[in-house]
Amino acid sequence: MQEKLREHIEEIMPLTDDEFAFIDSHFSVQNFKKHEFLIRQGEDVKYTYFVVSGLLKLIYNDESGKEHILSFAMEDWWETDFLAFYTKTKATMSLQCLEDTHVFCISPEDYQTLCAGLPKMEHFFLKKATSGHIASQQRILSLLSSNAKERYEQLLKRYPSLFQRVPKTLLASYLGVSRETLSRLSS
Amino acid sequence: MQEKLREHIEEIMPLTDDEFAFIDSHFSVQNFKKHEFLIRQGEDVKYTYFVVSGLLKLIYNDESGKEHILSFAMEDWWETDFLAFYTKTKATMSLQCLEDTHVFCISPEDYQTLCAGLPKMEHFFLKKATSGHIASQQRILSLLSSNAKERYEQLLKRYPSLFQRVPKTLLASYLGVSRETLSRLSS
Repeated sequence: MQEKLREHIEEIMPLTDDEFAFIDSHFSVQNFKKHEFLIRQGEDVKYTYFVVSGLLKLIYNDESGKEHILSFAMEDWWETDFLAFYTKTKATMSLQCLEDTHVFCISPEDYQTLCAGLPKMEHFFLKKATSGHIASQQRILSLLSSNAKERYEQLLKRYPSLFQRVPKTLLASYLGVSRETLSRLSS
Repeated sequence: MQEKLREHIEEIMPLTDDEFAFIDSHFSVQNFKKHEFLIRQGEDVKYTYFVVSGLLKLIYNDESGKEHILSFAMEDWWETDFLAFYTKTKATMSLQCLEDTHVFCISPEDYQTLCAGLPKMEHFFLKKATSGHIASQQRILSLLSSNAKERYEQLLKRYPSLFQRVPKTLLASYLGVSRETLSRLSS
């Protein structure tokens, strides 16, 4: 597992063995089965997760119990309820496995000590936070856009593997279209 | 103007005079009149903007010409089309003044040399990117939430001054409700 984390960080910048040992000491490994929850709406958020393998959905259940999909997270993606993680408030969303999933996790305290002890990790997390911010801004754009075909094509272009791995019903929900519209778009 | 930028950065970390002189040399100042555009959909994105005073809207015009509001940006806020800024692609959104606005701007090249020359600025930009990512995740949540009253109250709690400064029609558009629903919620 460890080499996956190292490879991922070294895509941004090289690390010495000592640096990686220091980084690694701030993470723990967890394994989840399909359908298990990493975060539950209304509860504490203990970690930010780095997905080594598997697939997650970040969801919001509204008052009527309807599930809305904020995002999917797969290999090499960092995901959590960021507001709750950084401000230590209760989760306003849930993070659940769509496949068996292996993750590295880091607590808010370990995140702070890691960045303070090895400032080049701030460079790494800045790249990741920027990518996350961009992905969120694009997701907002996609939600505001009235054109389902465009939304579908953007998603297919950006994350082609989602179309093999995510049930059609969830993809339709993510895109804000009916199951029938999705079938028409993908035919 | 310069002291505004320094105060803003020093909310996160102290700076020496030399450090601030180095930072300042990477920014330029621009002033815009109400209704002017900082970024136009389909054109190049030259800068990330730090708002010293004034108010901006980040918008998307769909194919039918309808305007959608991604976010508002006011004092102390950093805003741009982040995807276009970092990947040097054409803007998929526009940034326009709702009031006369004073900004600091930094180009992608200056952003890189500033971070490389003064790594503590990565600490600062990490905080800002994280806040931006959180705000975007909350905006997605708000768009997915079916409850207009909740959305209205979240916005009022988070940015009370928007309600004095932004025309009601734009607020209603941002919240995804009709002008009439907004009047009912705010009465």
